[in-house]
Amino acid sequence: MPQVLARPLRSFASDNNAGIHPEVLDAIARANQGHVVAYGDDPYTRSAVEKFKEHFGEGIEVFFTFNGTGANVLGLQALTRPYHAVLCSDFAHIYCDECGAPEKHTGCKLIPLPHQDGKITPELVRRVYHGIGDQHHVQARVVSITQSTEMGTVYQPEEIRGLAGFAHEHGMFLHVDGARIANAAAALGQTLRQATRDLGVDVLSFGGTKNGIMGGEAVVFFDGALGEDFLFLRKQGMQLASKMRFIAVQFEALLTNDLWRRSAEHANRMARALEAEVRRIPQVRIVWKVEANGVFAQLPRPAIEKIKARYFFYPWIEEENIVRWMCSFDTTEDDVKAFAEAVAEAVRG
Amino acid sequence: MPQVLARPLRSFASDNNAGIHPEVLDAIARANQGHVVAYGDDPYTRSAVEKFKEHFGEGIEVFFTFNGTGANVLGLQALTRPYHAVLCSDFAHIYCDECGAPEKHTGCKLIPLPHQDGKITPELVRRVYHGIGDQHHVQARVVSITQSTEMGTVYQPEEIRGLAGFAHEHGMFLHVDGARIANAAAALGQTLRQATRDLGVDVLSFGGTKNGIMGGEAVVFFDGALGEDFLFLRKQGMQLASKMRFIAVQFEALLTNDLWRRSAEHANRMARALEAEVRRIPQVRIVWKVEANGVFAQLPRPAIEKIKARYFFYPWIEEENIVRWMCSFDTTEDDVKAFAEAVAEAVRG
Amino acid sequence: MPQVLARPLRSFASDNNAGIHPEVLDAIARANQGHVVAYGDDPYTRSAVEKFKEHFGEGIEVFFTFNGTGANVLGLQALTRPYHAVLCSDFAHIYCDECGAPEKHTGCKLIPLPHQDGKITPELVRRVYHGIGDQHHVQARVVSITQSTEMGTVYQPEEIRGLAGFAHEHGMFLHVDGARIANAAAALGQTLRQATRDLGVDVLSFGGTKNGIMGGEAVVFFDGALGEDFLFLRKQGMQLASKMRFIAVQFEALLTNDLWRRSAEHANRMARALEAEVRRIPQVRIVWKVEANGVFAQLPRPAIEKIKARYFFYPWIEEENIVRWMCSFDTTEDDVKAFAEAVAEAVRG
Amino acid sequence: MPQVLARPLRSFASDNNAGIHPEVLDAIARANQGHVVAYGDDPYTRSAVEKFKEHFGEGIEVFFTFNGTGANVLGLQALTRPYHAVLCSDFAHIYCDECGAPEKHTGCKLIPLPHQDGKITPELVRRVYHGIGDQHHVQARVVSITQSTEMGTVYQPEEIRGLAGFAHEHGMFLHVDGARIANAAAALGQTLRQATRDLGVDVLSFGGTKNGIMGGEAVVFFDGALGEDFLFLRKQGMQLASKMRFIAVQFEALLTNDLWRRSAEHANRMARALEAEVRRIPQVRIVWKVEANGVFAQLPRPAIEKIKARYFFYPWIEEENIVRWMCSFDTTEDDVKAFAEAVAEAVRG
Repeated sequence: MPQVLARPLRSFASDNNAGIHPEVLDAIARANQGHVVAYGDDPYTRSAVEKFKEHFGEGIEVFFTFNGTGANVLGLQALTRPYHAVLCSDFAHIYCDECGAPEKHTGCKLIPLPHQDGKITPELVRRVYHGIGDQHHVQARVVSITQSTEMGTVYQPEEIRGLAGFAHEHGMFLHVDGARIANAAAALGQTLRQATRDLGVDVLSFGGTKNGIMGGEAVVFFDGALGEDFLFLRKQGMQLASKMRFIAVQFEALLTNDLWRRSAEHANRMARALEAEVRRIPQVRIVWKVEANGVFAQLPRPAIEKIKARYFFYPWIEEENIVRWMCSFDTTEDDVKAFAEAVAEAVRG
Repeated sequence: MPQVLARPLRSFASDNNAGIHPEVLDAIARANQGHVVAYGDDPYTRSAVEKFKEHFGEGIEVFFTFNGTGANVLGLQALTRPYHAVLCSDFAHIYCDECGAPEKHTGCKLIPLPHQDGKITPELVRRVYHGIGDQHHVQARVVSITQSTEMGTVYQPEEIRGLAGFAHEHGMFLHVDGARIANAAAALGQTLRQATRDLGVDVLSFGGTKNGIMGGEAVVFFDGALGEDFLFLRKQGMQLASKMRFIAVQFEALLTNDLWRRSAEHANRMARALEAEVRRIPQVRIVWKVEANGVFAQLPRPAIEKIKARYFFYPWIEEENIVRWMCSFDTTEDDVKAFAEAVAEAVRG
Repeated sequence: MPQVLARPLRSFASDNNAGIHPEVLDAIARANQGHVVAYGDDPYTRSAVEKFKEHFGEGIEVFFTFNGTGANVLGLQALTRPYHAVLCSDFAHIYCDECGAPEKHTGCKLIPLPHQDGKITPELVRRVYHGIGDQHHVQARVVSITQSTEMGTVYQPEEIRGLAGFAHEHGMFLHVDGARIANAAAALGQTLRQATRDLGVDVLSFGGTKNGIMGGEAVVFFDGALGEDFLFLRKQGMQLASKMRFIAVQFEALLTNDLWRRSAEHANRMARALEAEVRRIPQVRIVWKVEANGVFAQLPRPAIEKIKARYFFYPWIEEENIVRWMCSFDTTEDDVKAFAEAVAEAVRG
Repeated sequence: MPQVLARPLRSFASDNNAGIHPEVLDAIARANQGHVVAYGDDPYTRSAVEKFKEHFGEGIEVFFTFNGTGANVLGLQALTRPYHAVLCSDFAHIYCDECGAPEKHTGCKLIPLPHQDGKITPELVRRVYHGIGDQHHVQARVVSITQSTEMGTVYQPEEIRGLAGFAHEHGMFLHVDGARIANAAAALGQTLRQATRDLGVDVLSFGGTKNGIMGGEAVVFFDGALGEDFLFLRKQGMQLASKMRFIAVQFEALLTNDLWRRSAEHANRMARALEAEVRRIPQVRIVWKVEANGVFAQLPRPAIEKIKARYFFYPWIEEENIVRWMCSFDTTEDDVKAFAEAVAEAVRG
């Protein structure tokens, strides 16, 4: 083990290792006035919901949850009965990283499709779309994608439109795990609505936590009727905050003066900067296109170990020595340089 | 409908209608420095867990969740298999107010016992303790009580000891929904440990949200072995916060310089003050002993309607015209007086 | 312990302690010819379904399950989402005797109502019909009754019509656990349709096992649309028989030449005979009206113990020394006399 | 569509399309004497359990269920908590053909491994055995195999021993879906014990329905302690038969005078005969080794359609024109010849 040096202030482990954006913390402090009714029946929550409508248009239903797992699982539950199936990438967060929460809570089977650069396609979906009407088979009901993907890539608009089209033609819904939808929309130069509703998405988990808020996620139903019993699903799903105002104002801040885009664009830019730096280092291979705020690199295992002595980060595909480095709203150019230097040094031996 | 006047800054609807105690908000702001590892593997969380050990002693396991429903349900799940039963008061929050979350998530049946002033007794538990070993019956496994109770009363230490004794003699556990355990301990002049672990409690939902934090609850296993797989239950139960430090520091603040006690004692005192005020009003009957931070009153329905035009609060037993008024850490004596006056005025007609 | 005498051939423990009616066993043997398609897509099953339509009318959907628990639980699941509530008697089989299967499988809460002679009323239902639209409360969705009841009584037609009316006016369904619906219809001199569909029942668990078949139950949806995804619920609910023909032909036999009525009437008559015999015995009190095939008696505990040395039967309310004696399709007058004599002897001491 | 000819008496669709073996039906008829206690507390059930001990040895626990789905799902539930994972072939019956029952009922994720001739290997298991101790990942707990496999092949003893070894070294259990364990043991010339317990299997679903009984399956725990709460799991899992004797005697018959082996050997022999016949037909390719009672053949789609006009059977991998033909205890040599002729004729065009 190399000697452990003092840890730097900011790592590249994950955008959820970052703290709270100052505008968000301010919003919390400003909402800390007197009493308001709990569980969402308060003016802060109403105002935040209106903000969502400004961005996504009328006719939607919006509900706040505590975290991404809650948003994903309950969003899927709203669309399914327990004998349904959810089709997703074999690297999807809902498939790999939620400790079986979707299966436990919805009762549904998740059917993994072999991803291509983190994405799935109508062609892949078609291959597992079978057994419809056969009582022995789970019934395909939802296609779920992650935007931006778990591999740091971004679905192009026509790719999402294609998946939505296939889903709808076959009586299915398109669900988007948008833990990093802001990074995707920023990367594509789209509005939030253009990046989701206008492409045929039915339900969106709108991420906040990875884009600078303290904690919270929103489930957005573009056809409000789909969310008609979500109040009950959320409460029974243990995701109803009593002091809802403090989640609501975080989203209000995120959707005000385009903080969501400013933060996401910055994180994306830092990822591109990091990519540029590490591409110069021999023995470092960039595995997937850097299209959002993550850089996925393959490098010799001893080098990985050396870097980890200073910086915490996650292996992504351990057996292939692929690691993930994420940038966030507060990553600085100096952070990038220092990290790239640490990588270069580790690779040199 | 009477004319709606401007709403006062603070209501008596619930202690969760209050905001964040300044010491707690400060702690959040102070923790907003750089990056730390997510999901609880960070120094803030470790420090907060140590704080719990200072209060409750060694050998415990502590886990933070988002809310009380999560703490209760997952604490119960840790103690049960789906064919077990949880015995509780027919007015217990877990029975009445969690939209069936305990049943849905644990699979267990909750068996309601007719409460006496919000409490249950070994005698009542004994009556439904049957069918043990009979495959047709759910198997009694947990006795769950709320301290302080949903009726604002407080179990005496010997009452809890009696329930714990009965539970343990019959192969059951004693679970405490401690959303307001601070109010109970303060009322009894006990330490947190004296109020729980020392009485034989096995698992505690330690409440924060109703005692001045922004959001969060802790599950405390006094026999750490009971929590050995709780990490998985919590994640699968959708209650794992990624930016855990911001929940942890709230509890750290609550357990520092006895903030928990200062806030709870204040709220309790305000409730007694409110009781004293409204006892003077003819036609207002105090229904249960005011032992913690709630006042439960019976008064004529027209008076209730009039008060509600100015103050939001909850009916408790609607058909009997019993309502609930709660005090919180930020209730002031002026608030109490103004409210009592509104009540008096409403009763006068 | 008194000396154990040789056990008689037939007991009064339960109608499911009896074997298979010869006409039913014949039907099984006759169907044992060659191969047919599994899982219900066979001519025997189609024919049995047609038989149900002869009795209950057109527009229904009928599905066979393995047992009453399966029929009840899956019938309820077809009507609910997990945040719903099922209202039933506190002595209902689904509440007391299915080891929590309804809660585990549907996720719903079962709300017990204090029964009156085994029955519930619209008035009792009304008392727990609250919290509608409130996200903290489970939403009342189904009223479930047992006909004939767990106390051997029989709902009068107007009582069921009243419950159906209340349910439908309040957006609920009426479910009937008809494990002994044949005994009730026979007692009332009604056809099966008159006893159920014509009174407003929505879903019926049609019992076979307690009326002389080897094993099987049917779920009957009087509005076929309610059963539209039942094929999937049944398979996922582990209640799909592969050699379905052998369940189907049992029901075909039961519904042919009124075997259902002949068997039920006989069992009812034997119960009345038993009642007449034991009414003559001092110290035996008949607890509920003998309206179907069960006699519920209160008698001194030592006498109970003595009878049990020869005959197996179940305590019904143990602490009150109330026991249950059931008659079945094969109970004989001699059986009744011998048993009554054993009771008389035991009471004499 | 070709003209539909009269259907032959016996098909090759599935061994569960066959009826009841005469020795089994006799056993049912013989047990139809008087009353016995329900739910398994009867001499017939005790005797059948003893029969299992004769075959499998002492120290086991045996429970009867209604069907294979019930046996598999509840056997797995006994070994798991909901955050566990079950590793199995991507063609496993539990993965493909139970409409999501395992996920719905156990809460666990099933992780599919790419099968090789219907089998999985320790090497394949090792690849997905990761994330142990990581709260985000389901925890691998059970390896489940099907013997004989869904492709008609048979695991060799050392293959099962290898899987059991890997499982036990890694804190997992080995579960066998033995819907056709009799065919495997017969093929290998092993006793039932040699084919399971002696190889390190922990829990077995012992199949009856596909080997000539009317309906029923048994869960066998070789370490009885694993089944210690199975009575409750079974009842709550809706798999407890009230007239248990009629399931028990079917197994008694199956285990008497080696009926299980006689029937399985016959079915295996018929499959080999069918293989021999169809191997002579040009354009018919045998896809997997014929080691038990199934023949899997690839042939031109028009030929498949022609054969199906006379014989019902299932496509196995539809897009590759692979079909399944199963033999059963009552398949005759004439059946085989007639079917082979129909195939030959269809292929000729």
